[in-house]
This record gives sequence, structure tokens and C-alpha cells, in this order.
Amino acid sequence: MTESNGPPATTRRRFLTGSLVAGGAMVAGGRAEAAGDPAILEVKPWAQILGEGVDARPYGTPSQFENHVVRRNVPWLTADPISSVNFTPLHELDGIITPNGLCFERHHAGIAEIEPTQYRLMINGLVEKPIVFTLEDLKRFPRENHLYFLECAANSGMEWRGAQLNGCQFTHGMVHNVMYTGVRLRHLLERAGVRTNGKWILAEGADASAMTRSIPLEKALDDCLVAFKMNGEALRPEQGYPVRLVVPGWEGNMWVKWLRRIEVGDEPWHHREETSKYTDLLADGRARRFTWVMDAKSVITNPSPQAPITHGRGHTVITGLAWSGRGTVPRVDVTLDGGKNWRQARMDGPSLPMSLHRFYFEFDWDGRPLLLQSRAHDSTGYVQPTKNELRQVRGENSIYHNNGIQTWYVNEKGAAENVEVS
Amino acid sequence: MTESNGPPATTRRRFLTGSLVAGGAMVAGGRAEAAGDPAILEVKPWAQILGEGVDARPYGTPSQFENHVVRRNVPWLTADPISSVNFTPLHELDGIITPNGLCFERHHAGIAEIEPTQYRLMINGLVEKPIVFTLEDLKRFPRENHLYFLECAANSGMEWRGAQLNGCQFTHGMVHNVMYTGVRLRHLLERAGVRTNGKWILAEGADASAMTRSIPLEKALDDCLVAFKMNGEALRPEQGYPVRLVVPGWEGNMWVKWLRRIEVGDEPWHHREETSKYTDLLADGRARRFTWVMDAKSVITNPSPQAPITHGRGHTVITGLAWSGRGTVPRVDVTLDGGKNWRQARMDGPSLPMSLHRFYFEFDWDGRPLLLQSRAHDSTGYVQPTKNELRQVRGENSIYHNNGIQTWYVNEKGAAENVEVS
Repeated sequence: MTESNGPPATTRRRFLTGSLVAGGAMVAGGRAEAAGDPAILEVKPWAQILGEGVDARPYGTPSQFENHVVRRNVPWLTADPISSVNFTPLHELDGIITPNGLCFERHHAGIAEIEPTQYRLMINGLVEKPIVFTLEDLKRFPRENHLYFLECAANSGMEWRGAQLNGCQFTHGMVHNVMYTGVRLRHLLERAGVRTNGKWILAEGADASAMTRSIPLEKALDDCLVAFKMNGEALRPEQGYPVRLVVPGWEGNMWVKWLRRIEVGDEPWHHREETSKYTDLLADGRARRFTWVMDAKSVITNPSPQAPITHGRGHTVITGLAWSGRGTVPRVDVTLDGGKNWRQARMDGPSLPMSLHRFYFEFDWDGRPLLLQSRAHDSTGYVQPTKNELRQVRGENSIYHNNGIQTWYVNEKGAAENVEVS
Repeated sequence: MTESNGPPATTRRRFLTGSLVAGGAMVAGGRAEAAGDPAILEVKPWAQILGEGVDARPYGTPSQFENHVVRRNVPWLTADPISSVNFTPLHELDGIITPNGLCFERHHAGIAEIEPTQYRLMINGLVEKPIVFTLEDLKRFPRENHLYFLECAANSGMEWRGAQLNGCQFTHGMVHNVMYTGVRLRHLLERAGVRTNGKWILAEGADASAMTRSIPLEKALDDCLVAFKMNGEALRPEQGYPVRLVVPGWEGNMWVKWLRRIEVGDEPWHHREETSKYTDLLADGRARRFTWVMDAKSVITNPSPQAPITHGRGHTVITGLAWSGRGTVPRVDVTLDGGKNWRQARMDGPSLPMSLHRFYFEFDWDGRPLLLQSRAHDSTGYVQPTKNELRQVRGENSIYHNNGIQTWYVNEKGAAENVEVS
């Protein structure tokens, strides 16, 4: 590719430079590139040769120039690669859909590889008739499609005691947003016939960790889905192929992957993942338990430590994500000065309950340092708190449910850093 | 995997079979599997061994058991692999999002591989100031996100003279639906300053075919986007990476990929792709030209020739897609008997203008042969015509803009075939 990439013919360049204006100069009002942009005059290699045909890519992959856009982990966070986590590159994405290949995931015994013809889901416990479904059986119930975010309860967990991880991929990347296709868990429970003393369900995974969580029957009968597709295609292996539970607005570990069994009981099970894990130790030694709902939260994804401002001063687009487990996010505020002045961001794209929302804030940057923050207001009227407000009520022992306001310091060169303002 | 897959321990199986009911029997009311399903009792290999860790898949891929879910071509349709087309596997998908790896694509000179730092977009012609944008320049304009379908004008083109291709992937698979992130073309044109005699634009691609199409300025200033992301991530190479034009509701070849230049003119250019191609030759020898809008259309994706009914009689879910270049599709009808009786399907998921819509129709199949059809009604009141109604006004010379009603014959075994009813 390099060979054909030489300088353009001098005559052609001279001909046009007088009349060409660089787009950047117009947008920014700051760059003085009115002499024109020779790159448009070059006949690039891709305009000279025939590209690869279609058949080489029956299932398409990203451009070779996007190889840096991947899920990443934080090595010191999880020593054991089998019980691990990785993070969505939020700073490289836009809109509200997370592509399946970039959805963060957390597992407790590696990725189960389940043969779909061997898949079974059992409903047992306090039911009239214990019942077993094949994958094909499940697809014969009425299907629904919903765009929902899934956030790990530990998202932003490393930030409880102060700014630590330098990038929104690591501070906020345990969230994704896809369109699920599935059937209501309610229909399956009705088929089995829940007994009158049935008040809770236990969802159990088919992987080697047999992940289990207790869920109140009220939620199970409300909007939970037994899902088999994400963004149109089959669930990915690391997302529970062929079937996962979808628990809209609630913490991610309850969305049991490789779903194998739903047991109906009269009280919660108090298993490991709802006692020693996924609980919040308060300052006075008591623990908050069954903290299911993900409260309203937002984060500026660009600029951020992994995505500095590279164009210099002038017109700048700030963008980010907001979400709430309790409904929609009709409003996000943005501050450039660490919370002294707030201005309303522009919300864009479909506003759907328990789904990510995209916001933008456009402004002319004068090149002075910024203290960027965003603050979500959800449809219940709840406003995203500061980290210090959270600490006042929860102490500093917690890992989970940190929905505090995030601050990025942007220096005069556009580089961004994770900081806190008091 | 096979080795651990042996029969379960007899004692465990015996213990539970008395109380287990197979889900299929309950759903279908037809299968007699009340003896229970031993597969739920087996301890499967994936429950015994730790799976692969996360780091092996920084960009995730589908399950090994989904290898058959790919874009496919029709060899006899395009002899030249460089100027080719492939088709979305609609029968394997659900919901309304097409995953990026499965979006059909058509190109005229192979897939251009463009280095994003070398990307330039020029606006010239009847403008005050010719202007050149880098990719970074484009991202400094206000961004928008929209879920839009893209349909090739030739989708269903082989069906004009009768039922021919046996599968909805091939009859209707030149359509996909993704969320685009981009900037309004209007903002770029305003920056260049369109002269008062500017009435049309020419969109030109940077690939070796230099694909060009004339578009009326009114559309360009209305809802066209210069897009750089699809479903959250960068455009795929075969979809125009790094930048394509989005022309909502209009035929796919106008959505110029690898967008290199927008020229403003006072009349259309009458280039190859709007004269010898992408025009409809009528029976009387005249040709319809500039037939941009994709009229309302629908297709049943399941069952269909590639996706027969495999569960036998009983409760059956019919599903399909509907769309209109003129707005939303509030209603789809389904017939089981070739159009004698129509019943309203259940629409599901977000209903967005110029986006795919998903419909379902659940019924108890008695095992008798079916003549399945769907019929879309769009928000303007337009109703999808039969193929014969289309032929009456357009003759049989056309390739493009066949939005006629599709028929699948389903035999008593559940196998489906592409047929026509008169």
C-alpha cells in the first residue's frame, strides 16, 4: 500500500489548492489550513485496485485499522484468568447499541460451550408440574424484543476510595446495551404452575460454577425474559449461549447465563453470590443486601483518558452515556468546571426504559483546562449523586453500586485524567 | 466433548422421570413426552470443566454451533466475484437489529480498504467555497443516531417473473437494519455554501468503481447522514469504512460507500447507475427512472424454505419483517391460505420510521399444508401489493423495486417452498 501512496502530481495539486478550504479550519475557526488539503487530490491505492470479494468474509469482521477497539481487562483486578472480567471500550463507541463482539463479560468458571441440541431448562420446586424445556420448546412461546442495558454491580467499584483507573473503559466499561429476543419467564412459570407459597425463584447456570441468584417472584413475573438472541443473532458463548436470563434494570450477575434451572421457593436461598459477594458492607459493619436495581448513572466517554482531544481548541463534541434501572433518562447535565456551572446536554436516539441513552454537548473550547462531569436525571426524578454524597451514606467499604459522578481533568493539550473534585 | 456425553446414571434418571413433564408436550399439546426428559439429569461436560477465559476473545465471535449463520451468495447471479453481492440470513435472525457481521452487501469493485488517517471528503461544484474534511473534522459536527433499513433496489428482483429462489435469505436478504451514527449532510453543505442554482448533488465513492449517484438537493438537505459508525462501532469495510452516505428510505445503491466527494450541480448527472442500471424497463419500452423510495414490503422469515417447521403440529410461531421507505409499518396481516383469510399479526419492538419492524403470528397448526403470506400497511396508508398487481402496471422486464407479496407453501411435514398463487 505504501508504494502507491506517494505525493500527488504537482500540477494537479497547484490547480486546486487555491480554491480548497480545509474542513477543520471552518469547523474549529482556529486552524489556519486555508491553503487546502493535498490528500484529496491523490489517487489512493483503494481507488486503483479491485478490493477483495465478498465470499472471503461470510461472517464479517472489523477493519484492520480498528484492531485497537477490543475488550480489555485490568490484570491486577483478577489474578485467575478463568474467573475473570473484561471491559467494553466505551470510548470507541457511539450511539446506544453495543456490538456483540465488544460486550463486556464477567464469568466465574470460564466460558461454557453448550451444544444447543443438548440444552435443557428445568423449572422445579414449588410448582404443580416440574417441567423441562428444549431450546425449540422455548421458541414456541410468544417472543418479545427489548433493548436493555446490563451493568455489573461492580462497575466503577474500584473508584469508591478515590480516582484509580485511567479510562472510562475500566471505570465504567462493565455495561453494555443490546436488543434481546426472548420469551417472558412468566409464561414458563405459568406452564409449570407456581404454588401459592412460591415467593422467590432461584436462577441457576449450567456452567461449572453453577452460578445461582435468588430473585423475588414479583420481578420474575413482571419483565424477566428467557432470552436466546442478542442484536438479532444467537447469544454469544460468553453471554450465555444458548439461553440467558434477562432481568431488566437489575444488577448483571442476576442475569444468569447458560440458564439451566429455575427453582421456585418460599424464601431466598442466601447463596454465595448474594451473601459474601454482591452485598455492600457499610461503615457501621452492617451490610446492604439484595440491592438489585442499578441506580441512574452517566459517564462522559469522549474526551476521556483513552480518548484525548486531539484537534486543539475550537469546536468540540463531548459525548457520553446515561442509564437508569428505574426507567428512562430524560435529562443529563454537563459541567466544564467541576460542578460550578451545569448546562443541559442534548439527548439523542431512542429513549427506552432500562436502556442506554446517548448525550452530546457541543462547545467552543478555548484551550483552558477542563473539569468534565455529567449528571443523569432519570424518569423518577432521581438525580445522580456525587461520589462524596454516596460515601456519606455508604462509607468506603463498598465495591458495588457506585453510581457517583465521574470527573475527567482535561489539560491544555487535550489529555484527560481520572480525578476527583471535592 | 463426546466422551463425557454418555447416558446419565440410571438411578438419578429413575428418581426424577416420574415427576418431570417435557416442555414441548405442554406447549404443543401434541407430543406425548410426559415420561420426562433425561437430558436435564446429565452432568454435561460444560458443567464439569472450566471454560476458556476471556482474554482469548478480545473481539468476540459467535458460537461454533452457529457456523451455518452466514451471508451467502447465489453463484449464478454474479459470475464475477469482484462485482458481487451476498445476502443476509434473515431466517436465522430475530428482532430488528442486523448484526454487523451479517449485513448483506453489494459492491462494484471489491471491498476498498481505506486507511482512516488518509480519508478525505470533498464538497465542490456549485458552492461558495469548495471544502475538504478529514474524518476527525466530520466528528466535530453535531452527531445523530438513527436505526434505518438499507434495501438494495434489486432485492426480490429475481422473483419478477415467478417464484425462483428457495429461501428468504435469497429472495429478501438484500436488506439490513443498523443504528447509524453520523452528521447531517446538510451541515456540511451549509459550511460549503450551496449556490442558488444548486439543485442536485452527486455522491461519489472512493473505491475503484467510483460509484456515483445523483440525489436531489431537497433530500440531501433533509435527512441524509454522513455516517461513520454502525451499531455503535466503526463502519465495516464492506459497508464503506470509514464513511458512507445514509439516504433513509431510499434504494441502497444511493447510500454511497467509501464516500469521497459530494458535488453540487443544477441537474442530475445521468451516470451509469441511474440509466442502464437501477431503472425499470416497462412493457411499452419506456423506463421508470429515479425510482428512489423503497415501497412498503414484508416477508415471513420463519417458516421459510431454509427454516422449516420441525416440531410437528401444535403451537407454532410465525415471524417476519416489514418495512417502508415512507415511514413506519403499524400493521401487518398474515394469511395461512394464500390470501383467502387475513388476520392481523402482532407487531413487536420499537416502531421507528424507515426501520425494520418485527411481526409475530402465533397459531395452532393442525398439520395441514399452508400457503403463507404477509402484507404490510405503512403509515401513509399504502398497502403492499400482490406480485400480479405489480406486474399489471410494471410488466415483467423489471429487476428492481419488487415489493410484491411473497408466498411460502408449507407441506404437512413442515417443509417450505417458494411458490406463487394466482
